[in-house]
Amino acid sequence: MPQLKAFNISMSVDGFMAGPGQTQEDPLGADGESLHEWVFDSPGPVDSRYLAQRTQGVGATIMGRNMYGPVRGEWGEEMWRGWWGEDPPYHHPTFVLTHHPHEPVEMDGGTTFYFVTDGPAAALELAFDAAGGADVALGGGASTIRQFLDARLLDELNVAIAPVLLGAGERIFDGPLPAGYGVVSSEPGEAVLHVVIGRTS
Amino acid sequence: MPQLKAFNISMSVDGFMAGPGQTQEDPLGADGESLHEWVFDSPGPVDSRYLAQRTQGVGATIMGRNMYGPVRGEWGEEMWRGWWGEDPPYHHPTFVLTHHPHEPVEMDGGTTFYFVTDGPAAALELAFDAAGGADVALGGGASTIRQFLDARLLDELNVAIAPVLLGAGERIFDGPLPAGYGVVSSEPGEAVLHVVIGRTS
Repeated sequence: MPQLKAFNISMSVDGFMAGPGQTQEDPLGADGESLHEWVFDSPGPVDSRYLAQRTQGVGATIMGRNMYGPVRGEWGEEMWRGWWGEDPPYHHPTFVLTHHPHEPVEMDGGTTFYFVTDGPAAALELAFDAAGGADVALGGGASTIRQFLDARLLDELNVAIAPVLLGAGERIFDGPLPAGYGVVSSEPGEAVLHVVIGRTS
Repeated sequence: MPQLKAFNISMSVDGFMAGPGQTQEDPLGADGESLHEWVFDSPGPVDSRYLAQRTQGVGATIMGRNMYGPVRGEWGEEMWRGWWGEDPPYHHPTFVLTHHPHEPVEMDGGTTFYFVTDGPAAALELAFDAAGGADVALGGGASTIRQFLDARLLDELNVAIAPVLLGAGERIFDGPLPAGYGVVSSEPGEAVLHVVIGRTS
């Protein structure tokens, strides 16, 4: 059975997965970039193994609108095409949750952004269809992950705890997990602690 | 210069250092014991090195009243002597913060509990005097650590992030650190991620 998995969700020691004040210049909020240094700074073998999971056997991605871009409310005239340039790192159909309809955006390298206005369950059905039997990756932000978790649609949440403090921002864990979820494994990497949360019953 | 350091403060992935509902049977609250499994479960060499710091060059300990015992308000008739039996693991003068005066409690093995009603700064002065030039260790709970941090009396806060989820409980990090504090080092252990927070300016 294909699964929905959130990979390498970086979280600060104080529990935030993005800093406060996301803008076009600061897509991860104040100091939010420090959460992801471990990804770019020559990751060691364990951290690399976790990073590689993001692309192995994954056929589609779902993300929240804030992960796609800084535009809020109506999409407006400006043609935002994501944070990642003309060849985004997804290389497969990518579904963006939004309340505002938007035509698909076709990028280079196999990534097409589709915009879904019918909520998480509808987005997941489209993504599983598009993935053709492969798993689906769930991106952020925190509220998107929390929505899928609360709806019990998420099979695996792979958290990477980075040794940084943000002081404020967006939390995933601001309340108990839904029943039936828990820590299923953990492994210290070279730079972060990997904790896999999944279905325990 | 002797310093005040909090060692091996175990914290869950969701940011709690004790579960909800501390009682005499459950001194760390619901599921709180799972935070400390890494201490007892044959720790590996890195984790052991951090655990050893707790006793090396430390001459006195300060703790909050909840870490000393479950009694709240007036001490009453019952003679509570701590959670640790007749030979507590401190082996030096140990200062308990409380609003209610109490005679010192002398235990076996060099531990004497002194009760301080004048607040954190007064307790720290007594502890530095008692330590005779050695460092002072700060125990929990979360609110005690936060008080010393906010008063800028804490030199080092050594957090051990354990791969468990508690869902609720006491947080240390529910707001920004005071200016001048930050992450000074981190090291993945065999079972937990060690993150050292200290003065950065």
